[in-house]
Amino acid sequence: MSTTYPRGFTAAAATAGLKPSGTPDLALVVNTGRSDAIAAVYTANRCKANPVLWSERATADGRARAVVLNSGGANCYTGAFGFQTSHQTAEETAELVGTSAQDVVVCSTGLIGVGGEDFRAKILAALPGLAADLAGTPTAGQAAARAIMTTDTVPKTVALDGPGFRIGGMAKGAGMLAPALATMLVVLTTDAPLSAAQLDAALRAATATTFDRLDTDGCMSTNDTVVLLSSGEGAEGDGAAVDEAAFARALADACADLAGQLHRDAEGAHHDIAIEVAGAATEEDAVAVARAIARSNLFKAAIFGEDPNWGRVVAQVGTTDAQFDPQNIDVAINGVQVCLGSAPHADPAEVVFARRVDVRVDLHTGGAAATILTSDLTHDYVEENSAYAT
Amino acid sequence: MSTTYPRGFTAAAATAGLKPSGTPDLALVVNTGRSDAIAAVYTANRCKANPVLWSERATADGRARAVVLNSGGANCYTGAFGFQTSHQTAEETAELVGTSAQDVVVCSTGLIGVGGEDFRAKILAALPGLAADLAGTPTAGQAAARAIMTTDTVPKTVALDGPGFRIGGMAKGAGMLAPALATMLVVLTTDAPLSAAQLDAALRAATATTFDRLDTDGCMSTNDTVVLLSSGEGAEGDGAAVDEAAFARALADACADLAGQLHRDAEGAHHDIAIEVAGAATEEDAVAVARAIARSNLFKAAIFGEDPNWGRVVAQVGTTDAQFDPQNIDVAINGVQVCLGSAPHADPAEVVFARRVDVRVDLHTGGAAATILTSDLTHDYVEENSAYAT
Repeated sequence: MSTTYPRGFTAAAATAGLKPSGTPDLALVVNTGRSDAIAAVYTANRCKANPVLWSERATADGRARAVVLNSGGANCYTGAFGFQTSHQTAEETAELVGTSAQDVVVCSTGLIGVGGEDFRAKILAALPGLAADLAGTPTAGQAAARAIMTTDTVPKTVALDGPGFRIGGMAKGAGMLAPALATMLVVLTTDAPLSAAQLDAALRAATATTFDRLDTDGCMSTNDTVVLLSSGEGAEGDGAAVDEAAFARALADACADLAGQLHRDAEGAHHDIAIEVAGAATEEDAVAVARAIARSNLFKAAIFGEDPNWGRVVAQVGTTDAQFDPQNIDVAINGVQVCLGSAPHADPAEVVFARRVDVRVDLHTGGAAATILTSDLTHDYVEENSAYAT
Repeated sequence: MSTTYPRGFTAAAATAGLKPSGTPDLALVVNTGRSDAIAAVYTANRCKANPVLWSERATADGRARAVVLNSGGANCYTGAFGFQTSHQTAEETAELVGTSAQDVVVCSTGLIGVGGEDFRAKILAALPGLAADLAGTPTAGQAAARAIMTTDTVPKTVALDGPGFRIGGMAKGAGMLAPALATMLVVLTTDAPLSAAQLDAALRAATATTFDRLDTDGCMSTNDTVVLLSSGEGAEGDGAAVDEAAFARALADACADLAGQLHRDAEGAHHDIAIEVAGAATEEDAVAVARAIARSNLFKAAIFGEDPNWGRVVAQVGTTDAQFDPQNIDVAINGVQVCLGSAPHADPAEVVFARRVDVRVDLHTGGAAATILTSDLTHDYVEENSAYAT
């Protein structure tokens, strides 16, 4: 179950030949319903990839019918030619599915700088076959989710039900996961009859506490895109209203589910780390402190070595502007209170490590809390990312 | 030649038994000259170690006579007991060298959380022997430089002459090198007859463009201390004035020399990377962009793999608030213009790698430039930092 789970969506996958592996690398999701509302969130990186520059324009009016995605090349920093490629991809797709180019979102993922003539030719040649295979089946949705994988080891999908609506989705992303959604492509679909503005509000709220709090390696991508399309075919098929709050909760659940899948499949990770900062004056403070810890290579290497090195945690707290008393910080690792009042407490040898590592920091300043998900720094991470281009 | 190179300084080293290796771990530098002026710069980390909390008070009046340093324990996050240890260390040292505790700077380096009763007892027991060995010889200065090493593979020292004055120095630091001077202890000595205010101005200017631009792993330490002591014995021994601008230049040279030594000895590094950002609107912009690149694990892993992955460079430019045109960024790696106008240019295969890697980014926005020194992300870095505490 994936993007085709809600009523009014079809999907397909194809092999354009962009990946040396010869596996599927092109996906298409089409909204065939009565509504063409869409909401989208893009990377905060100021150097955006060409497909993002294209799609920002395409979704500015809150309307779109199709999302075409490729792996095997990011089409980023490929100049005017690269932008033309995204534009042409949208034109051809629009022609094939019966809409206008301005209603086609384009997403690319892969190596930056890849997006030349060969790249364009392969995509354009594969589009007709891709469109011909569109189907509303679970198999089609699953195939699309597989086609957008890069270094992902498993496809990531979600499907859930709410009162009168369904939500489906697929995601890719394994490295470069960082704030403001780093190389992550997410297509969410729903049949909830909601306006573009309603979808936008729900999507921004959901991403702020899910994808935005996944920070595996601190690197912000140039291609991140999260879109949410509504076919309007829900509420028992009659387009009646659905409860907006219930939809927002369900969407947040779907995003949290996909974010968790991305977290567990992070490149080279041996430990899935959740850093909860409690007792913060504000939620912003909690996020800032948790993110600072999540970005410490020394802390991340220590967790790889299963060394409950709480000193590297407290040291990162000190790099932030958050409100706290340097003499009153507590740190627990997997439930063992290794640091109390900024001093050693329980014996770190008591900490039992597993794949999942929970770090809890208490700032004793207020009532706000937040959790950032990150990964340890491993030999495999170094290996995967030093050999990626070759 | 080291801290004893200028007239009016003695130094010594001892083995207190803090390091499991049994190598020297205690050092002392004493100013025996007519002046007791000192300037100091400390970590910007808000969670400071106890010796830093002590030394900030000791140097607040611009006067100090001695610096006592230990490796084998950071005495950080060790509570009130740890602060008392720093205080007591200063008291005992003052007694032994004939000054007041308020004129003794204390520096510690090693593992955070180490600074208990055993740590204190070993230091206090070793101080009399340490003081008894004080000498103004090159050998004594060199021994002190060796005693402050932690994961450093070589001692770092400097000695140079200016018109009417000498400058000497020693430094330690291999990991946790980051902005605002990360675990770096630096003792600089001079016989230039300058006031504390003059020393302070020269020191702040010198550190801002040297130690502050060394960012090997983005981790800011809790113990960083850079001090500059003047004996006033220079200018031909008659205490006559020296040229302040000449001194500032010489001090900057000495700091750059030590920073270069720290850079080349960074933990686990296989490549010494210099990231120059030119064409920036302001020097702050240039520093911000270069630092963002220096902190990208993806970029650092690529350099380890000798992959001239310029896309990871441009992506980091985009994460900053600096002024630039996303369509007009140039990147050269070891002189090969791999990216021109934010698009591929020369074949990355032309890049020849060596231990030293020069990355040059041109923002085409203004005339400011800055260089940040960093290291690649290697298996050795992961290994050293995952096994450090055990």
